[in-house]
This record gives sequence, structure tokens and C-alpha cells, in this order.
Amino acid sequence: MTKPTIPADLEQWLSANDQRIHDELFEFLRIPSVSARSEHNGDMRAAADWLRGKLTAIGFTAETIPTAGHPVVLAEWKKAPAGAPTVLVYGHYDVQPPEPLELWTSPAFEPTIRDGKLFARGSVDDKGQLWIHVKALEAHLATRGTLPCNIIVLAEGEEEVGSENLEPFIRQHAQRLACDAVVISDSTMFAPGIPSILSSLRGLAYFQIDVTGPASDLHSGMYGGAVVNPGMALARILATFHDARGKVAIKGFYDAIKPFSAAVRKGMKKLPFSDVRFKKEIGVKSLGGEPGYTTLEKLWTRPTCEVNGLLSGYTGEGAKTVLPGKAMAKVSCRLVPGQSPAKIEKLMKAHVKKVAPPGVTVHVQHLHGGHPWRAELDGPIFDAARRALRAAFGKETVIVGEGGSIPVVGDFERILKVPVLLVGFGLPGENAHAPDEWISVANLRGGMRAMAALWDEYVKA
Amino acid sequence: MTKPTIPADLEQWLSANDQRIHDELFEFLRIPSVSARSEHNGDMRAAADWLRGKLTAIGFTAETIPTAGHPVVLAEWKKAPAGAPTVLVYGHYDVQPPEPLELWTSPAFEPTIRDGKLFARGSVDDKGQLWIHVKALEAHLATRGTLPCNIIVLAEGEEEVGSENLEPFIRQHAQRLACDAVVISDSTMFAPGIPSILSSLRGLAYFQIDVTGPASDLHSGMYGGAVVNPGMALARILATFHDARGKVAIKGFYDAIKPFSAAVRKGMKKLPFSDVRFKKEIGVKSLGGEPGYTTLEKLWTRPTCEVNGLLSGYTGEGAKTVLPGKAMAKVSCRLVPGQSPAKIEKLMKAHVKKVAPPGVTVHVQHLHGGHPWRAELDGPIFDAARRALRAAFGKETVIVGEGGSIPVVGDFERILKVPVLLVGFGLPGENAHAPDEWISVANLRGGMRAMAALWDEYVKA
Repeated sequence: MTKPTIPADLEQWLSANDQRIHDELFEFLRIPSVSARSEHNGDMRAAADWLRGKLTAIGFTAETIPTAGHPVVLAEWKKAPAGAPTVLVYGHYDVQPPEPLELWTSPAFEPTIRDGKLFARGSVDDKGQLWIHVKALEAHLATRGTLPCNIIVLAEGEEEVGSENLEPFIRQHAQRLACDAVVISDSTMFAPGIPSILSSLRGLAYFQIDVTGPASDLHSGMYGGAVVNPGMALARILATFHDARGKVAIKGFYDAIKPFSAAVRKGMKKLPFSDVRFKKEIGVKSLGGEPGYTTLEKLWTRPTCEVNGLLSGYTGEGAKTVLPGKAMAKVSCRLVPGQSPAKIEKLMKAHVKKVAPPGVTVHVQHLHGGHPWRAELDGPIFDAARRALRAAFGKETVIVGEGGSIPVVGDFERILKVPVLLVGFGLPGENAHAPDEWISVANLRGGMRAMAALWDEYVKA
Repeated sequence: MTKPTIPADLEQWLSANDQRIHDELFEFLRIPSVSARSEHNGDMRAAADWLRGKLTAIGFTAETIPTAGHPVVLAEWKKAPAGAPTVLVYGHYDVQPPEPLELWTSPAFEPTIRDGKLFARGSVDDKGQLWIHVKALEAHLATRGTLPCNIIVLAEGEEEVGSENLEPFIRQHAQRLACDAVVISDSTMFAPGIPSILSSLRGLAYFQIDVTGPASDLHSGMYGGAVVNPGMALARILATFHDARGKVAIKGFYDAIKPFSAAVRKGMKKLPFSDVRFKKEIGVKSLGGEPGYTTLEKLWTRPTCEVNGLLSGYTGEGAKTVLPGKAMAKVSCRLVPGQSPAKIEKLMKAHVKKVAPPGVTVHVQHLHGGHPWRAELDGPIFDAARRALRAAFGKETVIVGEGGSIPVVGDFERILKVPVLLVGFGLPGENAHAPDEWISVANLRGGMRAMAALWDEYVKA
């Protein structure tokens, strides 16, 4: 293995500015830009303004553009030589809610480095990975005064709540966003030191199920036994979503799936993956899910139906003998190619209607959805990425899938009609969406080097 | 029907003091004596002290006696003529938590009268009914300077959390509490204007079920499909508690039951009860529960298994794609004669152990229990109560059952070896344990008159 090398001027600049790069990222991470909670609307605007300022400072023309929800930060640098291609870099500046707060080792919005890991809400998802691109671009402009291709940076503020306003935004600004490729870093490497390109994402159909019974909470002694209990009714509905073996039992759920190719499944089976280590990492004694598939296949190629939240009746300290008037579940399905959120919504609603017991009213609301996605992996941006990743990490790139959803990937591909490169610098176990979210400091550094090298490699192609 | 009459002096005193009686009760109801929440410990002491003060003021020797939990208020008046019997009046000064606060029309701890109903947490359960006795006793002492029998008033502060410290208290103070009968008003009349004696109570076995999966909440995309979801596992466990027809499906659950007599069941069937009105009252379109029984039989004579609370994952606004690390249910069984909390705990634990899926850890905790109870209904205190109720309400008393639990009833009977009279002045639909709890102002007045008349009638027997 040869020592990894990226162009010397970029390497030198990134090394020399390492401390400042970290300090500025800490500033970004301290802004609690939680898109799901209206009380953070001010923080959302602050994060967008902060990012716009940084992009302006490095030489981009940047603005924040209002949407029906949180603003989009849009920045452009279009001074590349005539005939040079244009690349759109996408990221998001919003983060997941930090709760439960008591499970964080250090506060969610007070970035802290321990053992080579930078802990903070948004560190890996996605502020840290967006920062990788901003600083890679700055490396070029600061050292050379120019970039080898035109760049558009688009950072949205609604990725964690379904990116509802981004598709209309892309449609509305399609001409301005015209490009030759889209690059997104919002995913993970297969393992430390193994650079990875992501070839598929699962889609999402996220529901809230509300079961309403008596007009108010009742005394469980005085009324219990004659009234349908909404909490029990909800449990019985949820229990019908899977069969005893772990397959989703919603009629038609698997029907439209277009399976992954034998070649891709074979590649996945070759990846060094240990169920034992996976179980240890997440702290469980045994795994579950749909029978007949490996863990990676379950995570990357098969759909799911999961409870995300449950709430009913009395949940505090001690015992309250209440027959709850209502019960709520948040339930979401991860989708794979062939499935669509709209179709799954229909199937889910039909299923719940069929199994809902009399005596309660059941309402299923589709909170948001995203299409699954699968890449072709051919063309100059993919080739350039493989070379840049090898230069920065010193290893060949592997092709991976991912179980998460980035709904906008399909939107970019469909509306702008260009390939989308997903190259991520997270790592398994980094607690995205959970307490103690972190990003590897080594990956922050390696990612910046790879993404700085990418622009040179791309125009060589 | 003759016009109801109680002794003129008592009637006159109660009428003349009506406003003060109400004002003082309002003071009592304003103290948020929520026994389940440690942050209300100060309010619990305040409520006990307030009650002790009122009992002292009317002529009793009263004290608050510490327990391992909340204090007991114990008051005595023992100056009755030689040979007069002694009666222990029991009530409780603690109340249920008021949540959900937003469903109260007027604040839970700001008593308000609307349409002849006094709304407040604790109005009917049990401060208002305890107050009926205090003022009935005051009517005697204020008008006559004496009572026809000796009276012990015992008010505990842990009825809503299982009365765990009361049984030891009764055992420890059995000599001091020695009496000829116990009278308790913590139940309801069958319907407005129909005075009622309660002949049976269901017992209780209250559990918390905790399902633990991954060590922390996980991203539902990155991990969903390969990990057993604690929320879904909990739902599947809860769904096994009943069969498709609504019978409890926990093995052995019904085995030890000693059925109610045919005579009692026949009496219940004669009571004027309307399923249509019951459904309207609680706001549901259809009823549920164990097949083969009338609604009153289900409520009074059959055991249940109910969800009292559910909590898992993300329950806030919007959509958070989390695979929760844990899920919790509060589940309680109402018990009928023959069943015991200890036996049901064993059956519940065995059942959950059998159905719990691999991949999660399931812990069942028995939070508290109470024995079911059934009265014989013979003897002087019951005869006296029938006469006093007729004098105050002008109607014959009916014998009813109740679905709720007052665990201490069995304790009194067993330890003090005396009959327990349960005579209640609540009404169906009064929202005990729910928002907008109320007591009928007419029943407050009627109850005071009946309980004032009770002491004269008792010594006549």
C-alpha cells in the first residue's frame, strides 16, 4: 500500500488550518437547529445565516432562500474555466431532536472530543459532513484562488422532517441548479479506514396511528372490563404488522419489490461483517427481523415496519389506575426499490382498517414519505471519487448499501437528470438520531482531503 | 313516598352551616395532595395537618401519625355513654395525579361549581366523601355536645398508591382501632337519588412491564430490520393478554374464581341499567370485554387485564425515525373473589416469560396489589344504614357491586374482625381518576344528612 497522497498544496493548507476548521465546526454544532420543534425556529434561522456567512467568506455567492418551512442556504462559485463541469454539493444543517437528554455523556449542543470522537448532535448527521465539503472547497480557493469546476452548495433545513419543501425548491430552481453531478455526504463508511460509495438507500413511509376510545380517561376499576381499552387495542393492531417469524404481514407489502441483483447481493456477502460484533455494538444478545436474509441484506435490501414511539395513559412514577381515553403510536416503514410511500400508505391504511377492533376509533396519518433509491455507479464522478478516496485513505473503495433514507437523492436524480454520488464519512455505531452522536475526527480530516482531491480528479476524467 | 326526614336539630344545623361547610371543603380541595408524586410530599403533609386541625376543632382528639410513606390522620371521640358501640370511619386525603391538565375545564385544584356539580381533583375521591363524615359528626357535637356512639376517624394518604403502609398501621394499632364496625364512603350510588350499599369490590394487581432492547435508541433506518424493536415486542406481548373474543388469555387466570351467587347476579340484572346510556356517558359507540356477561356483571363480578399506560421512543411533535431502546407498559388486573394479587403476579410473570421474544429483555414488576372483597350485608350497621339512607334520600337502598378496588376494606375486616359498611355518595360518570372529576352537590348535602342520621339509628338497633 502506497502512502495516501492528495495534492501537496491542499494537504498543507488543511493541516495548517486544522485548529480553525475544528473551532468553526464547534460553532456550527452549538446552534440547536432542531427542525422538528417549532420552538427552535430561531435557531434554524441562526444556523442558516451562520452557514451562509461562512460560504460567503470563502468566496462563494451565498444566500438564504425562504421556503414554506425552514430556509435553504444556496451558494455558488461559477468562475471555472469555460467548458468545466458543474457539481452540486448537497447537505443539511438541521438536526434530530436531542432527547432523551439524560443519556448524553456530554451535552448534545456542547461539542466535545473524547478518544478521537467528536460528540454533538449533528456531528455526523449532517453538519460535520457538510463542513467537510465547505472546508475542502476553501482549501482550493485559499491556496489557488480558484476551483477546477463550478460548484453549487445547497444546504437544506428540513432533512430530519422529510424534506417536504425541497422537491418543490429543486423544481422551481431547476435551471439555476443545473449541473453534471450531485455529491452528497450524509452516510457512513463501511468500517474505519474503508472508503465507501453508497449504492442504495431505503425509502420511508412514516405514520402516526391514533386510537381513540372513551371521551376521557376513565377509572380502570369502575369501567374496566366493559370498555375497549385504546392502549390494548393499539397493541393488538401493532401486533398484526408482523407474522410470528418476523415478516411484515401487511397484505401486499412485499409485492412490488424489485430485488437487488445477484451480483450486488454477492458483493454484500463478501464485505467483512460480523453479527457478533454488530450485536455487541448495539448491546443486544440476539438479532431479529425477516428470516432468510443476512444482517446486511436485512438492513440494506429489505423493507421494515417499526414502532418509533408509543404513548398512552399514565407514564409517570408509580401506579395510576386509569383506563386511557386514547393511545398513539408512531410507526414507520423503510422501503426498498419497487415500493413507494403512496402505495405503502394505502396498504397500511387498508390493513389497520381491517384489524381495528370495534369500540375505538382508529386514525392513520401519513406524516411523510421518501422514495427508495439505487445508483448505477458508472461515469466520471464515480471514477473520480474512487481515485480521490484512494488518495486520501490509501485503500480501494467498497460499494455499500444503507438502511436509512435520504429522500432528496431520488428527487435530484429525477429532476436534474444527473447522477448522484453518495460518499459518506460516518461510521457504524456513531449514534445518529440517538444520544451521544459522534463523528470520527480522523474521518473529518480524511473526508476533507478526499473531497478536496475530488475536484482535481473530476476534471481529469 | 314520605318526605325524607332526619332529626330536626341536625337538619337545621346542616342547613344553617351549608356555606361554611362548602367553603372549608374548597380549602381542602385546593391542597394538591397527590400521593404518587414525591414533589407533592409537602402538600401531603399540609393536607394531613389541615384535616387534623378540622377534626380537633369539632371536638375530636386528633393527631397525624407518620408511616413509612405519607402520614395517617387519626382522630378519636370516645365520650359516648357506657356500653355504646364504637365505629371507625375511614377515608383518604390523597388524590390521583391531575394529568392531563389540558383536559380540565377548570383547574384541577381550583374547586368550581357548575350545574350542581362540584369540580375538583379529589371532590368525590375521596376528600368530598370524607368531608361528609366530618361535617355529620360536627352536626352532632355542635348541636348536642355529644355523639350516641364512640367514633374513630382514620384518614390515610396512600389510597391512590396502594395503601401499602395502612395494613401494617392497622395491625400495629389494632387495639386502639378496636371497634364494632367500619364505615367507608369512597364509592358511588347506583344512580342519582338511589341510595346504595356496596357489597363487593374488585381487587387489583398492578404491574409495570419494561422491555429493553439495544443499549440506546438507534436510527431506525440504519438498524431497522435486523434488531428486535422493543416497542413492537411490547405490543406483541400485550396482544397475548386476551383472546380474540376478549377473554383474558393468561393461563390459569380464571381458575380460582368463586362465582357470585345466583341471587346476587339476579339482583344486578334487576337494577335499571342501560347500555345505551352507559355508552353515551363515556362517549363510545360500542362496548367490549369478556363475552357472556352483562355490562354490570363485567364491571362488578369479572376480572380484567388493562393497559394503564404506554411509553416508548419518540412521542413529540412530528416524526423522529428512532428505533427505541426500550418500551414500558403499565398493566393492571382487577380481581374478583377467589383471585389474589400474589397468585395473579405469578401467572402474569409466567405468561410474559413464555411469550417474550428473544432479542429483548422483559422485566415485570408488581407495583402493588389489593384483595377483592365481598360483604355479608347482615347486622346492625347495615340495618342502621338502610334506615338513615331512607331518612335522607326518601328511597329504599339498593345493593350494588363496584369494579374499583379499596384494598383496605379486606384489611379492616380481617384484622379488626368487624363488618365493613361501604356507603358511597359518588355518581356514575363523575370522572374519578380522570379530568373534570366532580361530586354532586345534592349528594354532598344528602350524604351529610344520612351519615348524621346513621349514628342515631345505629344505637337504636
